[in-house]
Amino acid sequence: MSSTFGKAFQVHTWGESHGPSVGAVIDGCPSGLEISREEIQKELDRRKPGQSAVTTPRGEADAVEILSGVFEGKTLGTPIALVVHTKDADSSKYEPLRNKPRPGHADYTWMMKFGHFDWRGGGRASARETVGRVAAGAIARKLLIHAGIRVIAYTTRIGPVVCPSPDPFEPGLASRIESNPVRAADPDVAREMEAAILAAKEAKDSVGGVIEVVATGVPAGLGEPVFEKLDAAIAHALMTLPATKGVEVGGGFGLAQVRGSESNDIWYLNDQGKMATRTNNSGGILGGISDGMPIVARVAFKPPSSIPRPQDTVDLATMTSTRIEVKGRHDPCVLPRAVPIVEAMVALVLADHALRQGLFPRSLVAR
Amino acid sequence: MSSTFGKAFQVHTWGESHGPSVGAVIDGCPSGLEISREEIQKELDRRKPGQSAVTTPRGEADAVEILSGVFEGKTLGTPIALVVHTKDADSSKYEPLRNKPRPGHADYTWMMKFGHFDWRGGGRASARETVGRVAAGAIARKLLIHAGIRVIAYTTRIGPVVCPSPDPFEPGLASRIESNPVRAADPDVAREMEAAILAAKEAKDSVGGVIEVVATGVPAGLGEPVFEKLDAAIAHALMTLPATKGVEVGGGFGLAQVRGSESNDIWYLNDQGKMATRTNNSGGILGGISDGMPIVARVAFKPPSSIPRPQDTVDLATMTSTRIEVKGRHDPCVLPRAVPIVEAMVALVLADHALRQGLFPRSLVAR
Amino acid sequence: MSSTFGKAFQVHTWGESHGPSVGAVIDGCPSGLEISREEIQKELDRRKPGQSAVTTPRGEADAVEILSGVFEGKTLGTPIALVVHTKDADSSKYEPLRNKPRPGHADYTWMMKFGHFDWRGGGRASARETVGRVAAGAIARKLLIHAGIRVIAYTTRIGPVVCPSPDPFEPGLASRIESNPVRAADPDVAREMEAAILAAKEAKDSVGGVIEVVATGVPAGLGEPVFEKLDAAIAHALMTLPATKGVEVGGGFGLAQVRGSESNDIWYLNDQGKMATRTNNSGGILGGISDGMPIVARVAFKPPSSIPRPQDTVDLATMTSTRIEVKGRHDPCVLPRAVPIVEAMVALVLADHALRQGLFPRSLVAR
Amino acid sequence: MSSTFGKAFQVHTWGESHGPSVGAVIDGCPSGLEISREEIQKELDRRKPGQSAVTTPRGEADAVEILSGVFEGKTLGTPIALVVHTKDADSSKYEPLRNKPRPGHADYTWMMKFGHFDWRGGGRASARETVGRVAAGAIARKLLIHAGIRVIAYTTRIGPVVCPSPDPFEPGLASRIESNPVRAADPDVAREMEAAILAAKEAKDSVGGVIEVVATGVPAGLGEPVFEKLDAAIAHALMTLPATKGVEVGGGFGLAQVRGSESNDIWYLNDQGKMATRTNNSGGILGGISDGMPIVARVAFKPPSSIPRPQDTVDLATMTSTRIEVKGRHDPCVLPRAVPIVEAMVALVLADHALRQGLFPRSLVAR
Repeated sequence: MSSTFGKAFQVHTWGESHGPSVGAVIDGCPSGLEISREEIQKELDRRKPGQSAVTTPRGEADAVEILSGVFEGKTLGTPIALVVHTKDADSSKYEPLRNKPRPGHADYTWMMKFGHFDWRGGGRASARETVGRVAAGAIARKLLIHAGIRVIAYTTRIGPVVCPSPDPFEPGLASRIESNPVRAADPDVAREMEAAILAAKEAKDSVGGVIEVVATGVPAGLGEPVFEKLDAAIAHALMTLPATKGVEVGGGFGLAQVRGSESNDIWYLNDQGKMATRTNNSGGILGGISDGMPIVARVAFKPPSSIPRPQDTVDLATMTSTRIEVKGRHDPCVLPRAVPIVEAMVALVLADHALRQGLFPRSLVAR
Repeated sequence: MSSTFGKAFQVHTWGESHGPSVGAVIDGCPSGLEISREEIQKELDRRKPGQSAVTTPRGEADAVEILSGVFEGKTLGTPIALVVHTKDADSSKYEPLRNKPRPGHADYTWMMKFGHFDWRGGGRASARETVGRVAAGAIARKLLIHAGIRVIAYTTRIGPVVCPSPDPFEPGLASRIESNPVRAADPDVAREMEAAILAAKEAKDSVGGVIEVVATGVPAGLGEPVFEKLDAAIAHALMTLPATKGVEVGGGFGLAQVRGSESNDIWYLNDQGKMATRTNNSGGILGGISDGMPIVARVAFKPPSSIPRPQDTVDLATMTSTRIEVKGRHDPCVLPRAVPIVEAMVALVLADHALRQGLFPRSLVAR
Repeated sequence: MSSTFGKAFQVHTWGESHGPSVGAVIDGCPSGLEISREEIQKELDRRKPGQSAVTTPRGEADAVEILSGVFEGKTLGTPIALVVHTKDADSSKYEPLRNKPRPGHADYTWMMKFGHFDWRGGGRASARETVGRVAAGAIARKLLIHAGIRVIAYTTRIGPVVCPSPDPFEPGLASRIESNPVRAADPDVAREMEAAILAAKEAKDSVGGVIEVVATGVPAGLGEPVFEKLDAAIAHALMTLPATKGVEVGGGFGLAQVRGSESNDIWYLNDQGKMATRTNNSGGILGGISDGMPIVARVAFKPPSSIPRPQDTVDLATMTSTRIEVKGRHDPCVLPRAVPIVEAMVALVLADHALRQGLFPRSLVAR
Repeated sequence: MSSTFGKAFQVHTWGESHGPSVGAVIDGCPSGLEISREEIQKELDRRKPGQSAVTTPRGEADAVEILSGVFEGKTLGTPIALVVHTKDADSSKYEPLRNKPRPGHADYTWMMKFGHFDWRGGGRASARETVGRVAAGAIARKLLIHAGIRVIAYTTRIGPVVCPSPDPFEPGLASRIESNPVRAADPDVAREMEAAILAAKEAKDSVGGVIEVVATGVPAGLGEPVFEKLDAAIAHALMTLPATKGVEVGGGFGLAQVRGSESNDIWYLNDQGKMATRTNNSGGILGGISDGMPIVARVAFKPPSSIPRPQDTVDLATMTSTRIEVKGRHDPCVLPRAVPIVEAMVALVLADHALRQGLFPRSLVAR
């Protein structure tokens, strides 16, 4: 169903923003994978609110519990149930908006689909739903390390501020990204980005941006033609994130403007005598299947729709025009916290396709 | 599996480019839908090769046969098997390339995944695989008309040439698009686009572009949170097409550059007293669910990788450098023939989600 | 994946017998269904251990919590997460068996599949896994009542003791079944059955039996040809229960012994002028689709494999013969507690197929 | 959807009995498997009509064509499309029955589900639908041989005539079964069975029976807990066959009558020092996972419902009582031709679960 992601490495998420808990069930992970609560918590800490001045001040520790599927520090091969209890929900600010759909938000569409809606904190349409994705992604990442695959993301645009792409193999890249609040690869540009977010916040407004994600160590052969191509799976995965409006792989939309002699990546034998391409316009994927080069994708996020300035809308109870100001605690920009979420989604895709390609046995227990 | 698309309206495609036939099996279409061979053929004719100077001259009539699932002019509710026999395959040009992967093409990755490969005409990695999609899409479109939903696509960019988006409700739009070989909405720009393609062809090169697709008449409520959001489904669908490198919905990547007060679409009651938005940056989808406005998406195609100028590559048999010239009959630009394919994919997504939302009964037979 | 059941009404279960919790996530239930914690608890109480002298004395209250998917007493249409915390696990009796597979039990096969195993209480191979099924089944049953469908099961055999099938429309049937510890339709036979179980227990042995399940009010038209026929779905569902060894529908294996003129159910118009059959050898299903008559199935359970008498086996650590006595708290017969589980599984199948046939809208909220 | 079987080794079948063709698309078979048209045809020949006096005289050669997925004698890893054209359909005998549902047949239920129905030869409810299963099963069987797995079935009951189960490892068993028209393991009992069928036919009647199927060489570890247990998958698979009314595994319904000390299979180390059980009441499956012993299942078939003697029914056009005699060419007993179909279904289940357990690489091409 619609809250399930993946075919071989499968994640089911559940939970409403202001409900008692959110969580995930992961099914299909091979048995014998060593995983600890702390490894999962570490990723959740990167996603949690209240990290800096550019994120929402909602105070959630997002402490994860493992309820099943792990025994004596190793996965059992059975469903792994993870739960995070909600501690700091404050629904009072949402009560006045109950019948007044916020512009740019899911309020109206969820009401039309389901007939009623958990209006508290956006219910399941809230980005709080991604807690389960990040928790599951932590397990996927641990599994991928067995195959030498690593996933890293970083912010390359906040509104008008652009940051160039780093070399994904550069030592210290991950810690440099993690050391600034917007999670950009260049500390100087990061400061400009932070300023852009704070300026929007100051103006009772919000701002969008772009995150780039790179997977290194992916062997050639992952991806399932024709309807489950690896690039289609990544596009699908990233477009399920709240506030996303576009995805591109490798050269992306830029390739629509050039000729084949410019976009084709030329094959050659590299220093180790292995097949490689001189450029990577393909973003590591040809014909829907990985080609051994780094996989590169970018995802565009719109500015958060919840802004505290007055906006016109319609009161659905009376079917008359009205005006609202969205109070509550909202991120003025989703990108800083979205970086680990983007990584999680790409890790989930790669774990799924790695299993389908047979990169791992069903049991990692040494026999 | 990987050659299956959709959950409720489900399509399985099969076939290699130079094999005896290609086809599709459609499962899940309600019973009682009137459909004729001619209605399916009409869409295949829009996709078939040899339509104009800007497409490949391969001479396939692509005549479709219905082998099951239709009885007395109406669908039975059982699988609809469609087959198109191949008439004009010429594999001779591919023999020299057998172990020499074309830059930018799936040759290498399919070989790595499957261990061997039908090298004739690209095998299943060929765009000929989309015959089954278009045939299935014709049935999806017929079904959608029952719910007042229409899907139309057109070329908005060929290399450097850009064509503005038309009003999707404008009378005569479909025939105007169909009346020029590049399928653009503006006949004057279409001529420039055609020239750009012919110039690339003349230069033994190829060129990319962008197609925009619009669905009108989609009621609010289609799309399944959280992992099968309607925009994610469209992105997935379009990124399964050969040569695609990016997808965006509504304001797309442009929304990464603006503030929330600019990107939010304001709700109001329109002339008929119905909910509507003053702008459509959302592209008709909020929180993954349709909002009643036209659904708008764009997909970027890279230039075809098969170009007749010399290119370096590696001979996999000897693992030495080599140089190739790709002969054979190739499109210098995929967009003119991709327009009906893009429409088919979006129609398949919408038919699937319309069924899941309960827009149609299981049987359309009047009782 | 393998811990997911159903396509439209979908259940994911998780949890190990002696882990901190067991639970279920239900996805696909229409929004607006009224459901309370108590309604779910009521079904769990029928399944819980310690009900009588013929069940295990393990003391679990099996108190359920609803963590998501229900708001103001109604389903949201989002995943419903249910959890039951484990209170009375005692793993000490299992430690000596850690490397000594019990005859007739899953110990060995799970070890071979997964490389290691949660040996405490049988881990996920324990019948405790069915807690999630019964909880989910309670929601399915509530949904089915909207369509006038009711599911009832009862024990028809314990070892050599056989109880005739009751009339499913007989008033008071449900409470009569519930009023005896073996859940048989005839109180006198129930006493014999109880005696048979206690005799087996006394002999440090266990005993098997048969449960019959009937669904009334099922309209004609449910079931999906050809691989998801309603009878195949019921057989599948029941055979996923621990200790089951066979399933039959309607006349079942008995029909293998007769001629067509005896087994064919003759069509006629009943008192209300509706289509009906004079006999019900089909068990309410023809060609995989319900025919409007009561659906009738039977499932055979083997005796529980965990018996306290000495049995030979192999020590997998030393690969030598050994002898074990299975201590711990085990049911001498699974049938009394299996009756609500069988009902739950059939309710899950019918809810799934009712949704697929379009018996319910996506939202039950009145508009 | 409902015409798809399997998750990893996946089969889609299509076609109506008197339509132009029937067929199957197989997706998920590893690449590099050697398979010929003749190997598939051989299995279809065992299923085809007109083999003997105990089968229908309909004259179909059932010649199969491979349209995709096989290249230079080996599977490509892409969908394998198989088609069989219909040559000898005679719909005239069905015309009088168009609105008069045959007792015991799917006519009425399919009409209720789909609103209309291909009444010619039973349409897709006909056993002719199994052509695609047998063709796909031939490929599954070829794949299983790579892992040393063999599947064999035989008739053990026709009406009152019972044939004891053979030793599945006995040399020459397959050819002995194939050498008599009812496909029983004992030639003497086979003659009695043949007589029972001919007696029923003579009496314008039909007769049911039981087929047993055994899989040898299945390693321990196949089967997916908890909802896709191997025995549940086999039960599901067999119950999708037309005319089936029950399935049992190993000791089956007989185990409902005994005690645990009798039904438990005792573990020991066999002559080769490998784990084995002294009895096989489990039928080779414990906790839903194969245990290394032969897998044994039995399936009950009712007598064919189409019998040429007068039967009462209802005319749906006039809603009045009527009487019919079913003409046309029908099998008086389905079992002789069902033996290869049962084998095909079990082979499909095992191929699917073998792939899921990782018994085969994605490519069998030697590298």
